[in-house]
Amino acid sequence: MPSREDAAGHPGDLPPGADLGLLSPMRAGSAVEAETGDVAFLQAMLDAELALTRAQARLGLVPDSAVTAVQSAARAEIYDLRALAVRARAGGNPVIPLVADLTAAVKWRDPDAAGSVHLGATSQDILDTAAMLVARRALGVVVADLDRVAADLAGLAAAHRDTVLPGRTLTQHAVPTTFGLKAVGWRSLVLDARRRLAATRDALPAQLGGAGGTLAAFHVLGEGHGDDLGLRLLAAYAEETGLAEPALPWHTLRTPVADLGAALALTAGALGKIAADVLVLSRTELGEVAEGGGGGSSAMPHKSNPVRATLIAATARQVPALAAVLLGALAAEDERPAGAWHAEWQTLREALRLTGGAARDAAELVAGLVVRAEPMRAHLDLTQGLIVSERVRLALAPLVGAARAKKLVTDASRRAASEGIGLAEALADEPELAALPPGRLADLTDPTAYLGSARALVDRALLDGALVDRALAEEPQSTARRENS
Amino acid sequence: MPSREDAAGHPGDLPPGADLGLLSPMRAGSAVEAETGDVAFLQAMLDAELALTRAQARLGLVPDSAVTAVQSAARAEIYDLRALAVRARAGGNPVIPLVADLTAAVKWRDPDAAGSVHLGATSQDILDTAAMLVARRALGVVVADLDRVAADLAGLAAAHRDTVLPGRTLTQHAVPTTFGLKAVGWRSLVLDARRRLAATRDALPAQLGGAGGTLAAFHVLGEGHGDDLGLRLLAAYAEETGLAEPALPWHTLRTPVADLGAALALTAGALGKIAADVLVLSRTELGEVAEGGGGGSSAMPHKSNPVRATLIAATARQVPALAAVLLGALAAEDERPAGAWHAEWQTLREALRLTGGAARDAAELVAGLVVRAEPMRAHLDLTQGLIVSERVRLALAPLVGAARAKKLVTDASRRAASEGIGLAEALADEPELAALPPGRLADLTDPTAYLGSARALVDRALLDGALVDRALAEEPQSTARRENS
Amino acid sequence: MPSREDAAGHPGDLPPGADLGLLSPMRAGSAVEAETGDVAFLQAMLDAELALTRAQARLGLVPDSAVTAVQSAARAEIYDLRALAVRARAGGNPVIPLVADLTAAVKWRDPDAAGSVHLGATSQDILDTAAMLVARRALGVVVADLDRVAADLAGLAAAHRDTVLPGRTLTQHAVPTTFGLKAVGWRSLVLDARRRLAATRDALPAQLGGAGGTLAAFHVLGEGHGDDLGLRLLAAYAEETGLAEPALPWHTLRTPVADLGAALALTAGALGKIAADVLVLSRTELGEVAEGGGGGSSAMPHKSNPVRATLIAATARQVPALAAVLLGALAAEDERPAGAWHAEWQTLREALRLTGGAARDAAELVAGLVVRAEPMRAHLDLTQGLIVSERVRLALAPLVGAARAKKLVTDASRRAASEGIGLAEALADEPELAALPPGRLADLTDPTAYLGSARALVDRALLDGALVDRALAEEPQSTARRENS
Amino acid sequence: MPSREDAAGHPGDLPPGADLGLLSPMRAGSAVEAETGDVAFLQAMLDAELALTRAQARLGLVPDSAVTAVQSAARAEIYDLRALAVRARAGGNPVIPLVADLTAAVKWRDPDAAGSVHLGATSQDILDTAAMLVARRALGVVVADLDRVAADLAGLAAAHRDTVLPGRTLTQHAVPTTFGLKAVGWRSLVLDARRRLAATRDALPAQLGGAGGTLAAFHVLGEGHGDDLGLRLLAAYAEETGLAEPALPWHTLRTPVADLGAALALTAGALGKIAADVLVLSRTELGEVAEGGGGGSSAMPHKSNPVRATLIAATARQVPALAAVLLGALAAEDERPAGAWHAEWQTLREALRLTGGAARDAAELVAGLVVRAEPMRAHLDLTQGLIVSERVRLALAPLVGAARAKKLVTDASRRAASEGIGLAEALADEPELAALPPGRLADLTDPTAYLGSARALVDRALLDGALVDRALAEEPQSTARRENS
Repeated sequence: MPSREDAAGHPGDLPPGADLGLLSPMRAGSAVEAETGDVAFLQAMLDAELALTRAQARLGLVPDSAVTAVQSAARAEIYDLRALAVRARAGGNPVIPLVADLTAAVKWRDPDAAGSVHLGATSQDILDTAAMLVARRALGVVVADLDRVAADLAGLAAAHRDTVLPGRTLTQHAVPTTFGLKAVGWRSLVLDARRRLAATRDALPAQLGGAGGTLAAFHVLGEGHGDDLGLRLLAAYAEETGLAEPALPWHTLRTPVADLGAALALTAGALGKIAADVLVLSRTELGEVAEGGGGGSSAMPHKSNPVRATLIAATARQVPALAAVLLGALAAEDERPAGAWHAEWQTLREALRLTGGAARDAAELVAGLVVRAEPMRAHLDLTQGLIVSERVRLALAPLVGAARAKKLVTDASRRAASEGIGLAEALADEPELAALPPGRLADLTDPTAYLGSARALVDRALLDGALVDRALAEEPQSTARRENS
Repeated sequence: MPSREDAAGHPGDLPPGADLGLLSPMRAGSAVEAETGDVAFLQAMLDAELALTRAQARLGLVPDSAVTAVQSAARAEIYDLRALAVRARAGGNPVIPLVADLTAAVKWRDPDAAGSVHLGATSQDILDTAAMLVARRALGVVVADLDRVAADLAGLAAAHRDTVLPGRTLTQHAVPTTFGLKAVGWRSLVLDARRRLAATRDALPAQLGGAGGTLAAFHVLGEGHGDDLGLRLLAAYAEETGLAEPALPWHTLRTPVADLGAALALTAGALGKIAADVLVLSRTELGEVAEGGGGGSSAMPHKSNPVRATLIAATARQVPALAAVLLGALAAEDERPAGAWHAEWQTLREALRLTGGAARDAAELVAGLVVRAEPMRAHLDLTQGLIVSERVRLALAPLVGAARAKKLVTDASRRAASEGIGLAEALADEPELAALPPGRLADLTDPTAYLGSARALVDRALLDGALVDRALAEEPQSTARRENS
Repeated sequence: MPSREDAAGHPGDLPPGADLGLLSPMRAGSAVEAETGDVAFLQAMLDAELALTRAQARLGLVPDSAVTAVQSAARAEIYDLRALAVRARAGGNPVIPLVADLTAAVKWRDPDAAGSVHLGATSQDILDTAAMLVARRALGVVVADLDRVAADLAGLAAAHRDTVLPGRTLTQHAVPTTFGLKAVGWRSLVLDARRRLAATRDALPAQLGGAGGTLAAFHVLGEGHGDDLGLRLLAAYAEETGLAEPALPWHTLRTPVADLGAALALTAGALGKIAADVLVLSRTELGEVAEGGGGGSSAMPHKSNPVRATLIAATARQVPALAAVLLGALAAEDERPAGAWHAEWQTLREALRLTGGAARDAAELVAGLVVRAEPMRAHLDLTQGLIVSERVRLALAPLVGAARAKKLVTDASRRAASEGIGLAEALADEPELAALPPGRLADLTDPTAYLGSARALVDRALLDGALVDRALAEEPQSTARRENS
Repeated sequence: MPSREDAAGHPGDLPPGADLGLLSPMRAGSAVEAETGDVAFLQAMLDAELALTRAQARLGLVPDSAVTAVQSAARAEIYDLRALAVRARAGGNPVIPLVADLTAAVKWRDPDAAGSVHLGATSQDILDTAAMLVARRALGVVVADLDRVAADLAGLAAAHRDTVLPGRTLTQHAVPTTFGLKAVGWRSLVLDARRRLAATRDALPAQLGGAGGTLAAFHVLGEGHGDDLGLRLLAAYAEETGLAEPALPWHTLRTPVADLGAALALTAGALGKIAADVLVLSRTELGEVAEGGGGGSSAMPHKSNPVRATLIAATARQVPALAAVLLGALAAEDERPAGAWHAEWQTLREALRLTGGAARDAAELVAGLVVRAEPMRAHLDLTQGLIVSERVRLALAPLVGAARAKKLVTDASRRAASEGIGLAEALADEPELAALPPGRLADLTDPTAYLGSARALVDRALLDGALVDRALAEEPQSTARRENS
């Protein structure tokens, strides 16, 4: 029974402002949603705190017992998430109340260890590192989905290498093309996105700079440690997080976040191209493709909507604007800005989960896509030869001259359209063409014989793909594995 | 004790992707957050369903008993919100599973009434109406906060009508101004935003069109009812929701949503102007204003950060991009678009709650703002008279000619700056100025005597304000009251 | 002959960075382009300077002879526009070099008048006033085009009140609708946009505040004039420009610019909706509408592209982003910001001319739109009755119950689709429906008989339109006329 | 004399809508402006046409004499640019009229060659290739300017490795830092931008696909040439343009344009960070830096505005929105979309020239930046030791415990602030601190002794820089040289 009059988990238990995905079918229930929720961010902040304590213990700045205590307390489930969210208002970020709670939890376990919590760090060190950890985990999911999409598109391209349909420009039939060429083009976009996301992911840096980006507090903690203490701690901390070591603290050098924004928007757009085409091709009048499990309608029993494509299209409308906010946040004053940084958090999260949701939808869409060769072929005849008027014009040029060929074909096209006859028929009585061998006009207006390099392009692009796939398979250590080692 | 190792409500109970505001101190714990959460949207969808049943009962299309059953079932707390969110994927919107659950809940109460649920409606009728109900309730909160901001700014402007400080352009001291003029300017922006929000709110329409916007299904239900049945039902439904009656179903005529986006972005920007100024004036070197309850820092005990202004500034960076998505969604194909509509939901919600949070922050910021007249006055002397160089130039022009006056003052300004003397001193020995009465140069370089119309502008603008406030007080029936009647 | 090997005006004469519209067919050659070009802006700046001198002369601050000299020099054609553009770099805005050149030109005419040029004003007074003058003139053109669009759409709606076509949702046939309802919906969006643009235009204010927004310099000029001199000058200046008088100088109170951005984006979106529909309906497979003068193709003689709709759609993708920049510029620090103001100029100009170009294209598109009732009607039969499955379900519910009716129709729909038969046929043998009178199923599945309130909505919406049109006709004095009086 | 009453080139000669940069001091007169003007685009389109003819001649598809004729006609200066812009309306792009004019010009030179013009190509082949050529040339200018910026910032960082100033977070003094660290951080952003721009530039592909992206027409032209003719022609064409050879025609696979948008926005943001800091540090109250040649003011003789930073800041507000349009254009339907493509042209041009202008401004800004160590040092004392309260707290923790140290320092900070005394003084009488050696508190509160890893970070980052610079110097063949060879 769908309503839950007697169950736990209904609205009464929730903070009234909670967002559980009701307005976001794009990502509700997805793996990337789980990786980017408040719990995931809270855990990532605790992971960052623990990495700091570990790194400091490695350098002898805090006792090893502190690691034990912090590790025991660095579990999201023991904190009151909502209270942290509300208390974050006072200082403007959630790390401040979290440090207070973490310190209390550590103290309860080991009073001596309380002083080792968050030692020498600033809120931004923790929040930025957490965001990078969340982004890396989320991108792992997204990249895996993109790999599925690319693999299935390779299959579609190979299977439909010879499936002919109208190429369309400015909504009108232009010249014939193949569904294989469409699919391999989609795939090339997905591979572009995949490469940019993976490169961005692999470069995501840990953040550690202390109050003003100079790592000064750490030098107080380890006064006898020499001038390079800060840099050594930064390296150890990055290693503990599994993230890249930055050349400089990047509190206001926001390339990593801007790169994420750009790569996510490119990914949403790449998937948005697939969706745009599917939405056109699955129109009732076209029916050239259909989503395998199209969505129903409560009002109209007959409908089978392209729901996956719809949700991807919705995402492609949102992520570029989110990316613009992240790119705009590069222009940030001082050693920590008053606003530009704070504008990134929710924006980045939303970009991650929307794009990740679109990757999930794209994987399902492509895996289940029904491709209907028959209507594709039938539509080529809709214009009765006009779809190859370019070919006819070019083929007649040697015979009558380019300008005359153009005029002949243009006039015949108009007559064909107005009289409802075919282009070959409209040209048949032209005295200038009398010398053409019989059947030549029919041959010229065969739409399946005017595909140019379509097949060669598919073959070559698939070969590129194979090289890419082999390279991927040979990656010695995936980021995900490194993260867990 | 802050950590909650033994309490309910910790992360283990939550769906892993839940958003409880951890990354959004801008709105965590605010009234507008509660009005725009998933629970609020769910309740608003149920309110829309109930309004439909009520309107249909008024017209005799369904029995009155159906109203009783639907009313009893139209309570958000009996539904499994998260399950609805996840099930929304299949058809692409949350109304489809909600109608199934609501029907089941009604059937459990009154089997005969189940057939009356959602009768003749389409998902978009319910979701759009719900969004408008949520927006109206949220805007009620926002407008009330803006009224507080405007009232407090009127107080600040009156109190500081004569408080002189440097006017600054392109970051440099320009000419003196008053804090009263700054405050009354802020207030005029807030009133602009308030008017646009209130006008938008009052025009928010109910949505009812049925599957294709023709209201056709309702005519099947009431075949004997005459040609105007659809229009009469639309009117009755709008009345039941308390929203405006639209001239046409607006499934793809999205002026209401676009207007919301624009008005919210204007509001965020208006508050962002206040924040931008507070951030400048509260810099350590300026110290001309301070937030009453500035935020602390875990690392630096001495700090008192302008946190409210920071969070408002962060909001002002985000809402214009969200508004661009909503304005972009106007260009939507067909009777219901595949994506443009779906892109609105979360975007509108985020714009509402971010802007509402900024209004809350602005109310606190302005109510507690500490204005320090002494450093303001002291800064006027920083340039030793240069801040009134314009006045000196203009005042000397009748004596020596405009061009010569400009040259004299420019040369003296440079000399004053390089020698560290005052402008009056630098001009004192000019033979051409020997005819000036004693003390005239000192008078001319008195920065408090070069305020132009500052006071008159404040007085006039406050008078306008009073008229507005009186008009507001006289509003016979607030929207909020109408909604509840 | 198209190439101009011997003519004037070819690229050699142009500054190499000039933009003559080569990349902007959206607006090339339009009236709004001419109103927003650099020459128009230059002339508007000169108009603002002249208005200032006139206002000052009215108040006795400068001699009447100064007006004569400034008027003679305030003609754009005597200035070197490109040199002004390049010299604007030094101070960051074009008014600084323009004031130098204008002063020289006035001096050449009347040496005594040179000191009266730009007296007491700041660059922003002139540039903002010029932008408002340009905007007002441009909006005059846009509103007139929107009026043409609305009038032609009223005609289309009336003519096609009974033209039936498939209503489409999420790209699929949903239920029947009428082209009249589509057209009247387009018109309602156009009227929404027209009202917002006209209201914004009528409120566009003059700008005058002097260096820091206090009007202080004017008080030096007229020391004996009393405390209200600044306000009186502001009123006189606004009157001379024909723009509204602002309550306050608005150097950093940017509601007028933000409102323009929002209204222009709403307009571009409203027109974008029309374009989106035209692009769908004119697809080769649909062919339900066509642009009267579709664009050709050099390669494909047969093509007739929906070029007007394409260019409008391109505009609708750009203007929301431009509006976001303008809305973001509200958050501007100080009495004049370092960047936010400068970001507005080109952005506002581009938004004006893109939107104005779209209005021109929409006027041509709607005036020439070919509406083809036959394919519309034919497409209703594509799904062999499924397009009215909702109706059948509702009509059968009293007979067999709502749930059973839904099941019957859903099953029949599937069978109809898979067997290629009609819905009526698929239902014909249902024993439960044996009681239906002969022909009832055929009647129920007649798509032209399921239009609900479509006609009533058209009639009512057109009536609203008529009232609007009458009100427009009765406007006692158009803005344009007032401007020239 | 500045006004040009008798000169050529004044507004009367210009099309009324021309844009000569009057509203864009950001780029007026810059090299990148010249590379991106309409003339440059026109020439690039002609270059693309010539490259096509050359490639076809290499493959024997057209006679060599056609190359001679097309080369002679492929000079922008012989075409009527404005007429092309206006005529572009009909078909929606400027290539259509250009091909007509080019054909006429070729025919006039060599009647037999006219048929070889634009043979088998589509408008988008030419326009996209032209845009890539323009982008490559423009990016060459931008990258060179970024190299200048990076080199000068390396110099500033080295020179100010030990120049101490307040680190500021959320507008408040936080802890000391060095100007060297600020400068090296700016440089790292510039290098990030430089790398992304250069990588994007080097990958910019030629475009050739013919009417539907299948290269079909070329196969008609060379029927005996074998199946790989299309691919061979594509390779030859790319080689002739000097651009990269694409794997597929990319009419609707818009990664190159999206990448450009992202890289340009990142560059504008990186420069915007520098500008944001300069604007803060050059405020009248701070005066820590000044632009070498600050801009003047017509009204206020004393002003020296940070104009370069202002114009960069204005650019950083605009380019992210333009990038959002380009990223949004990825989601484009069909083999050529109706609008998404057309929305790119002016948007990309504006992003190129705004960003290029900002690079020019940044080069001048950094080259002339005045860094004032004295006020920087003086400001460290503004808070009388509070700026190192973190250090005091951490240093006292071993003595009194972490919690007690925090309380002592917090209380003392408050007392210091309220009584106007120093932090050391406020702590001096604490009995718990009596054991501290004399002078220890004074040492601890010395702001120049709390710089952590600032110097080490600068040294390391500069070393990275040196490696980069060396690598750049060793680039065997710059793109620019390859282009001209």
